[in-house]
Amino acid sequence: MYGIILAGGSGSRLWPLSRELYPKQLLNINSDKSLLQATFERLKVCIPQDKIISITNTKHVSNVKMQLSELTDNPVVLSEPVAKNTAPAIVLASKYIMQKSNSDPVIIVVPSDHLIQNKEKFLSTVKKGEKLAEKGYIVTFGIEPDYPETGYGYINTSENLDEGFRVKEFVEKPDVEIAKKYLHAGTYFWNSGIFMFKASTLFDEALKHAPEIAKLTENFDFSTSNNIPFIEFDKMPSISIDYAIMEKSDKIALVKLESDWNDLGSWQSIYDISNKDENGNVLIGHVLDNYSKNSFVYASSKLVATIGLEDTVIVETEDAILACKKDRTQDVKHIFDTLKKQNDNTHLVHKTVYRPWGFYTVIAQGEGFLTKIIHVNPGQKLSVQSHNFRSEHWVVLSGTAKVVLEGKELILSPGHSVDIPLKAIHSLQNPYTEDVEVIEVQMGNPLIEEDIIRYEDMYGRV
Amino acid sequence: MYGIILAGGSGSRLWPLSRELYPKQLLNINSDKSLLQATFERLKVCIPQDKIISITNTKHVSNVKMQLSELTDNPVVLSEPVAKNTAPAIVLASKYIMQKSNSDPVIIVVPSDHLIQNKEKFLSTVKKGEKLAEKGYIVTFGIEPDYPETGYGYINTSENLDEGFRVKEFVEKPDVEIAKKYLHAGTYFWNSGIFMFKASTLFDEALKHAPEIAKLTENFDFSTSNNIPFIEFDKMPSISIDYAIMEKSDKIALVKLESDWNDLGSWQSIYDISNKDENGNVLIGHVLDNYSKNSFVYASSKLVATIGLEDTVIVETEDAILACKKDRTQDVKHIFDTLKKQNDNTHLVHKTVYRPWGFYTVIAQGEGFLTKIIHVNPGQKLSVQSHNFRSEHWVVLSGTAKVVLEGKELILSPGHSVDIPLKAIHSLQNPYTEDVEVIEVQMGNPLIEEDIIRYEDMYGRV
Repeated sequence: MYGIILAGGSGSRLWPLSRELYPKQLLNINSDKSLLQATFERLKVCIPQDKIISITNTKHVSNVKMQLSELTDNPVVLSEPVAKNTAPAIVLASKYIMQKSNSDPVIIVVPSDHLIQNKEKFLSTVKKGEKLAEKGYIVTFGIEPDYPETGYGYINTSENLDEGFRVKEFVEKPDVEIAKKYLHAGTYFWNSGIFMFKASTLFDEALKHAPEIAKLTENFDFSTSNNIPFIEFDKMPSISIDYAIMEKSDKIALVKLESDWNDLGSWQSIYDISNKDENGNVLIGHVLDNYSKNSFVYASSKLVATIGLEDTVIVETEDAILACKKDRTQDVKHIFDTLKKQNDNTHLVHKTVYRPWGFYTVIAQGEGFLTKIIHVNPGQKLSVQSHNFRSEHWVVLSGTAKVVLEGKELILSPGHSVDIPLKAIHSLQNPYTEDVEVIEVQMGNPLIEEDIIRYEDMYGRV
Repeated sequence: MYGIILAGGSGSRLWPLSRELYPKQLLNINSDKSLLQATFERLKVCIPQDKIISITNTKHVSNVKMQLSELTDNPVVLSEPVAKNTAPAIVLASKYIMQKSNSDPVIIVVPSDHLIQNKEKFLSTVKKGEKLAEKGYIVTFGIEPDYPETGYGYINTSENLDEGFRVKEFVEKPDVEIAKKYLHAGTYFWNSGIFMFKASTLFDEALKHAPEIAKLTENFDFSTSNNIPFIEFDKMPSISIDYAIMEKSDKIALVKLESDWNDLGSWQSIYDISNKDENGNVLIGHVLDNYSKNSFVYASSKLVATIGLEDTVIVETEDAILACKKDRTQDVKHIFDTLKKQNDNTHLVHKTVYRPWGFYTVIAQGEGFLTKIIHVNPGQKLSVQSHNFRSEHWVVLSGTAKVVLEGKELILSPGHSVDIPLKAIHSLQNPYTEDVEVIEVQMGNPLIEEDIIRYEDMYGRV
């Protein structure tokens, strides 16, 4: 069996903790592992790790690789140059698997940003699904609804198939009256977004119902690169696997997902799965509360003092704060969209950005200057680089840094500094065992991350 | 006539915007002037500016002088080395005035942190008070209550005195039932904390009712300094003027304060006096709101996004955020007290600190290092100084800085830097017309503001 992890995402639902360039699956929620990492670990129970591949947008590849590298050597990550929803991604990733394995395996496709805590029950569901997939079904995993949720799509089932049910129809997010009917009917399930199929079944059904995708897929060749070429991929329609194939095919089956499941689609759902104190509050980080009830307060970098809140969500990050009534957390998406329209960077990135070599935090920014703290992990090295529009000035705060500037090597201990002139080729390295922290003052115009020419890079980013 | 501005304060009520070292009177609320500055401007209508003196705790003297210097030359600020409540401050400041003027003038005493917007009506109240003060009364200014407030002290009046009333008694903050009785009685007023008297009247009454304070006051001599010596002042009892004299004396009169008045004692009262939008919201700074009602949101440094809040106060500052139900804003004081007990600096100072030469902002802090942006106004100069426990490293971001290091003069333009070794005597100056911004990286242990030896200072802080 092979696994495909869908590792894209817009980062809008859990803003300001998620950002467009740091979406939900990269976050640690309730755990020391990210949702992406937890997804990988869950698949590892039923699939050898070299048979698990991830597919994500080019902009997330570096972060996805970095997180998966903590769990496995050389994780395979396919890079989509443009977002085309799930159908092209799933069909192409399946093609990749057939090409690499030269076989027709059963494939399980899973989102990377849901919470499923019971691995054993998940495994037993997968086993049932595998049997149906072997029989030629495209298998969906459904969750038995326990209340009339209006935020999910539903799947209606008909005849029993031993391991599951035949699927009658996919239905859109219902209003609350219809959701109640679905709940009472007993044949409806929530759509988990998890699918299983034999590769050949998917291609047959794609040829029938989404021939454009199936035919375009034939042109792709993964023998030399995992990067999907833009020109071909951009011809793909942007469509979900549900619309393109599932709703049209008559070979769809459903297996009931026995495990607990939560799509973590809003701060309300994060609150729901969290442990509460005696007042029903979830208080994370440096929070000082008096008299609040049933509230969720997340302080990531500063003190948050709360008094007398009820059913309220407060999320504090370095550059943006959300204060929201708990039953309005679905509307966070609108805030995100507004910020995006306004070109406000708070929708896009955090002030702290993770890199393969460590991380940096923007601590101040002004007319013509930008100041960061750069944290380099032991044994790591930033790329050999130069900048056309900015000079840099480094002061070592802790650890010992090795700097190569125009071919000259400098060993800098705390309190020592170096000027990096415009266009000078330079690198920053931590060859020792202690963390290195450096203050960087950038000066120039424009001051953008993209002003970087890389000459050498130990993480393959040249 | 002379004026005494009581410019002390604990900074607890409007936390996190006010801090112990940056109390309410220093804040700009609803105006481009601080409450202290507005108080001075108000007094200027009836008193020549060189006859207005301020008294405050030593820790606030620098900020009080700095703010008043924007309005008048050489403001007189008496410095209390320790907090002893209002009675010692008022009696001593009155002694200062008698000594300096060699006369027995009428004195008006005003708090510096209340909002009084109508200067003309204030002036007419003062004129009435002056007449009663000339007749030998200690005059209080009372506000006619328009609802049964439980957070203020009340003053009960008896016979009419033309310009006002004779005072029968001072009463403590009542519960709501008693407050309703006071409201209906028609003889009760809120205590504004404003007083007027002839200096000799105050001393006579002090000798009678607070002889300890009166006798200790005789030892003070202001002929050489405005700094009140600690050893003598520390012998004073810590007691309010109300307890020490007003409640005991039979020479108390009340004049009705005609002007609008607000003590700005909580975020609720700030909300009350602010202009609201059509949803009853007050949104200040970078706030993005959807569907909130009757809420107060203040963003000082970051984006605050709000959704569906009702009757809620959110105040965002660089290092602390308050989220509070509007009817619980009185409890902000408890948060402040808890932080103080925990030695959490967020009760004490802001990350941005104003100095006579400009301001600095702490932008990052860690084990053994601290980074600031220092902003030096044109023509200004930091003191000539050295540090025993820290080295410093300066990078000029904008403007042109003049640095003197161990007697050697350096002119630094943007992008240039200098190392200040441990114990080296140095100064930073902006002799030009453009603002200077410098990034300072401090390294050492301990890293405290107090590690400073001043050799020369243009603001008299040596």
